[in-house]
Amino acid sequence: MIRFECDYLEGAHPSIIKKLEETNFVQTAGYGEDPFCRSAKERIKDQCGGMDVDVHFLVGGTQTNLTVIASILRPHQGVLAAVTGHVNVHETGAIEAIGHKVLALPSEDGRITAAQIRHAYEMHWNDANHEHTVQPGMVYISQPTENGTLYGRKELQDIHDTCRALGLPVFLDGARLGYGLMAEVNTLTLKDIVGLVDVFYIGGTKVGALFGEAVVICDPMWKKDFRYLIKQKGGMLAKGRLLGIQFDTLFTDGLYYEIARHADELAIRLREAFIAKGYRLRYDSFTNQQFPILPDEHVRKLKEKYSFELWEKMDDAHSAVRFCTSWATREEAVDELIQDIKAL
Amino acid sequence: MIRFECDYLEGAHPSIIKKLEETNFVQTAGYGEDPFCRSAKERIKDQCGGMDVDVHFLVGGTQTNLTVIASILRPHQGVLAAVTGHVNVHETGAIEAIGHKVLALPSEDGRITAAQIRHAYEMHWNDANHEHTVQPGMVYISQPTENGTLYGRKELQDIHDTCRALGLPVFLDGARLGYGLMAEVNTLTLKDIVGLVDVFYIGGTKVGALFGEAVVICDPMWKKDFRYLIKQKGGMLAKGRLLGIQFDTLFTDGLYYEIARHADELAIRLREAFIAKGYRLRYDSFTNQQFPILPDEHVRKLKEKYSFELWEKMDDAHSAVRFCTSWATREEAVDELIQDIKAL
Amino acid sequence: MIRFECDYLEGAHPSIIKKLEETNFVQTAGYGEDPFCRSAKERIKDQCGGMDVDVHFLVGGTQTNLTVIASILRPHQGVLAAVTGHVNVHETGAIEAIGHKVLALPSEDGRITAAQIRHAYEMHWNDANHEHTVQPGMVYISQPTENGTLYGRKELQDIHDTCRALGLPVFLDGARLGYGLMAEVNTLTLKDIVGLVDVFYIGGTKVGALFGEAVVICDPMWKKDFRYLIKQKGGMLAKGRLLGIQFDTLFTDGLYYEIARHADELAIRLREAFIAKGYRLRYDSFTNQQFPILPDEHVRKLKEKYSFELWEKMDDAHSAVRFCTSWATREEAVDELIQDIKAL
Amino acid sequence: MIRFECDYLEGAHPSIIKKLEETNFVQTAGYGEDPFCRSAKERIKDQCGGMDVDVHFLVGGTQTNLTVIASILRPHQGVLAAVTGHVNVHETGAIEAIGHKVLALPSEDGRITAAQIRHAYEMHWNDANHEHTVQPGMVYISQPTENGTLYGRKELQDIHDTCRALGLPVFLDGARLGYGLMAEVNTLTLKDIVGLVDVFYIGGTKVGALFGEAVVICDPMWKKDFRYLIKQKGGMLAKGRLLGIQFDTLFTDGLYYEIARHADELAIRLREAFIAKGYRLRYDSFTNQQFPILPDEHVRKLKEKYSFELWEKMDDAHSAVRFCTSWATREEAVDELIQDIKAL
Repeated sequence: MIRFECDYLEGAHPSIIKKLEETNFVQTAGYGEDPFCRSAKERIKDQCGGMDVDVHFLVGGTQTNLTVIASILRPHQGVLAAVTGHVNVHETGAIEAIGHKVLALPSEDGRITAAQIRHAYEMHWNDANHEHTVQPGMVYISQPTENGTLYGRKELQDIHDTCRALGLPVFLDGARLGYGLMAEVNTLTLKDIVGLVDVFYIGGTKVGALFGEAVVICDPMWKKDFRYLIKQKGGMLAKGRLLGIQFDTLFTDGLYYEIARHADELAIRLREAFIAKGYRLRYDSFTNQQFPILPDEHVRKLKEKYSFELWEKMDDAHSAVRFCTSWATREEAVDELIQDIKAL
Repeated sequence: MIRFECDYLEGAHPSIIKKLEETNFVQTAGYGEDPFCRSAKERIKDQCGGMDVDVHFLVGGTQTNLTVIASILRPHQGVLAAVTGHVNVHETGAIEAIGHKVLALPSEDGRITAAQIRHAYEMHWNDANHEHTVQPGMVYISQPTENGTLYGRKELQDIHDTCRALGLPVFLDGARLGYGLMAEVNTLTLKDIVGLVDVFYIGGTKVGALFGEAVVICDPMWKKDFRYLIKQKGGMLAKGRLLGIQFDTLFTDGLYYEIARHADELAIRLREAFIAKGYRLRYDSFTNQQFPILPDEHVRKLKEKYSFELWEKMDDAHSAVRFCTSWATREEAVDELIQDIKAL
Repeated sequence: MIRFECDYLEGAHPSIIKKLEETNFVQTAGYGEDPFCRSAKERIKDQCGGMDVDVHFLVGGTQTNLTVIASILRPHQGVLAAVTGHVNVHETGAIEAIGHKVLALPSEDGRITAAQIRHAYEMHWNDANHEHTVQPGMVYISQPTENGTLYGRKELQDIHDTCRALGLPVFLDGARLGYGLMAEVNTLTLKDIVGLVDVFYIGGTKVGALFGEAVVICDPMWKKDFRYLIKQKGGMLAKGRLLGIQFDTLFTDGLYYEIARHADELAIRLREAFIAKGYRLRYDSFTNQQFPILPDEHVRKLKEKYSFELWEKMDDAHSAVRFCTSWATREEAVDELIQDIKAL
Repeated sequence: MIRFECDYLEGAHPSIIKKLEETNFVQTAGYGEDPFCRSAKERIKDQCGGMDVDVHFLVGGTQTNLTVIASILRPHQGVLAAVTGHVNVHETGAIEAIGHKVLALPSEDGRITAAQIRHAYEMHWNDANHEHTVQPGMVYISQPTENGTLYGRKELQDIHDTCRALGLPVFLDGARLGYGLMAEVNTLTLKDIVGLVDVFYIGGTKVGALFGEAVVICDPMWKKDFRYLIKQKGGMLAKGRLLGIQFDTLFTDGLYYEIARHADELAIRLREAFIAKGYRLRYDSFTNQQFPILPDEHVRKLKEKYSFELWEKMDDAHSAVRFCTSWATREEAVDELIQDIKAL
């Protein structure tokens, strides 16, 4: 079975394993206050254009999302997010469990717009009984989205400007940020993102690390006491160095970008093969997740040899499916899949 | 600087690093549903005497404590714990953050007694206004305690019998369980513990793993839907295999016990050196944490060469301090420290 | 200004005020353990067909909803409700604030169906990643709904049967239950409701009381420790007798039913006047809330003399509005409004 | 049985009942946005020296405490309070249920000191691992305390100065504030209190109202969006006017003070009778709660005719008990009790 069902099938990039081995007996302080974390933070700040951001390392995405959101909202506030957003659908109610409603906005492809945000904000404040409803307190977006799509510079600038005007902090979930940054259609750098959102994170788990997400707090307002929240929510690793070592490695000599580009390039080859075959795409993704719509017969055929995710039944005879590439996907696997698609 | 300040200074036992390297490109399903986790669970069940327990792997201790407690209590209930218990003092209010009061019981050395539990229970139910107070809903104990002390078989049996009679589930925090199991004074096995508590965990982070705690749910009542809670509280690792690989390694050929015994033996050598020097011990510990009471002058002297934790000011001229050994402590470091103690 | 904007414009039915006055200097125990509460509970149990239910009195609707839901759900569970349900839209996120997601089901008129519940349940359990999503843990319905509509016997029986089969407790919000019970199309009695749901409440605030809701717990499973939750959530009135006195009065000589019927009859007269005028109705309500769709010009005209709520813009020239009657609405006010409608 | 067991045995002062009756058919907007609330707020602001405070009305004490505390703390913060404080012991964990630890300070008589607050603050910030512990985020005090004692001007000024310096908001629970204000030893006015705390409330439930507490927010920082929190926590009464009517009545012609003074005077007569009899007092209270220490034989004797609360077993033969007077206590009842005490 050749596997394309997700982007966390393997361990970590070998450089990380090697570094873990080399540093294994170095003694350090715990809880992220070690030289590896310090070095990794400096490297990330450099990539953020040397701006005065705070960087923290957490273990996983759900934990990161709930910790960041807990650090920003007051009790009566909720978070605006695409109905498809990870916080709305795939975290077992983690956001509600810390007390906040996810205010879901309709979305065709995982993205929301500045206009939707403004509309939701105005609907709230124009409601004579707004005190009886959840106040929009921040905005959550994903880049790339859960559907592989990307916000362009203009769209993100609009969200930034609108949210700045409305007083809504923006949190960008970058679980797959590397794959977004390296997409051929992307023009946004980490430095750009720092200027456009209040808090974001750089995903490690799905981009070459064993685990780990690097939270970058751009707005000074949300920096205070963040480590207390990491600890309280169970995200402070005793051996925090493990996160430092991993991100230090990923941000040495551009490894993070290099491995993400690898995945994107393979994904684009798949995309082109799907299109060449005449399949429509469920979402117009230029990142490592591809969502072609296949005849169910082809799905069955491919399932014999490949693992991939059934995404959505489109009609009686067609289904959207998801193929993921990653930093670890082998070219040969993609070659073989493409041959098999052609042969269908 | 020779370091004794905690038991998470290094990475992991080399066998674990080696196994991570060997398995790095094996592809597996995520979220703990992989063969490594399955194998590790089987090994742990074996150590638990083949009993019908559920085993789950989480990343860290605070996360484990809050997830287990969330899975057991109803909203109006609290958890009885020693005032010194980790959940009461060192988790930034993680238990309160999930809605529950820690009902702190006085403790001299980290332990609580069946009599204290019964007393707290009766105080609650005999209070005419008990509905205005937090109902004791479960008991939290640590083995070894945060002070290095141990519950003996009789004490744990008493707690079990009392709690069974009162309908209070018992949760045993085993962040350092290995060091407890291998203490020379200990007579309890994992199998014994399964029979005496409702839920417990086997600590990996402080006993040879990079990270990870293995929750063992003994009572069928608390098994249902536990994975939902792991996910919601941010404890479900995407690459769950990492936990499986580590615990599988630790429970192969008795590695977990062997490395814990190593730490305990070194700790006992320190203990004897402290006693020989005429120091009193703050707590009567036979595990990897030792708490001698030193003249402040000796503290200053030792601090020049060794790192260890100032625990408590005892009087104008003396302080209790903490020295930790671990699976990674070198015999030579202990030899040197003992020489220097003698020389003081 | 003649007011129809809501059903809590006045104080209480005069019998209640009189009873408060008469009993003012009677001394009683606090927190609902007084003879008035006991008597009121007996009267309500009688109306419930003498079945073995628990009755508790709380102050208001949001408090009641959050307390009941907190008493039933485990942390990873959510409550299925109509998207229009009060818990979903008009409680400032009270349910999320106690940790639970409201799992909103589409609804045209405030009602949901057994089929929708089953579908949501199956969607959850058929999802391979269901542990990553909120588990449906109970069902919330309103009778009458927020849109004035009613579940018929068959519909409620279906919901009951489905939920029983799926293991989902049903909670019925009866903030306006009186107006539902007395609607001409209704065939359900309190006793019927006891047999069809697990918990429900009989609204007092909107049906003749100064304030107060009577929670009726039908299923023994949810009875335990409910008073602790009332206290914790701030709903336990020190002078609980005030609730007892009010419900005792409301359930003496059928007062509750009589005043609710009064409101319904006036509402039906309005309904008929709207229909006679050629207005369509936004919802097909036979209870005390009526939602005609008016030309905006008529809205403006009526607004000069009457207060009522703008509900929803229907098109460029029409709006749905809400007129409420209550136990306190005067017949003359309705006569006058009907005349003015005819004259438009 | 002549009852002294609490201060909420009866309904309300007759003026309130009368006013409820008179205004019963006046139609008003709901949720506290009515003329009665506006008038009551103005009267309270007047009593607060015309300062720019926000006034809100809630139904009960626990609800008020949890709502105010929720509005102030961030998730990682706790509230410093006397170990005897109502929020720590008699609210079924309401504060923990909204996510916050009560950081209990030892107290002999219900009061805490500025020095204790400073000490707790410094203990936290001097702890190298302070991020692993709950951060003190505010201070809760009661005036009078649950033990009937009072903070003097100097003590409250010290608390104010210390908390201002440390950045800790102070919340004063005034469930029995009237009885404190009118105590012969008291020199603090409402206006003084406005200058010394950030938020406080004026208790109605125990001082002449059927129910109701008036929250006064002094510091502009805590004013924002407070009504959202009232609604979310279930404290927003649909017929908010009921609270307005009651507080408007209580603050007309000094009724609140007058009835509180009545209770205090009767309490002082009891106090003197206890002292004359040679009883020691458990707490040195000059307010409406008195705590004499009686021989158990006298307790038994008095129990035949009077109801009062057993407070604490002092030794084998003595118990502290609690006698409460209130706005409604009759002089004759006190006369009779005093005669019976003398006769013991």
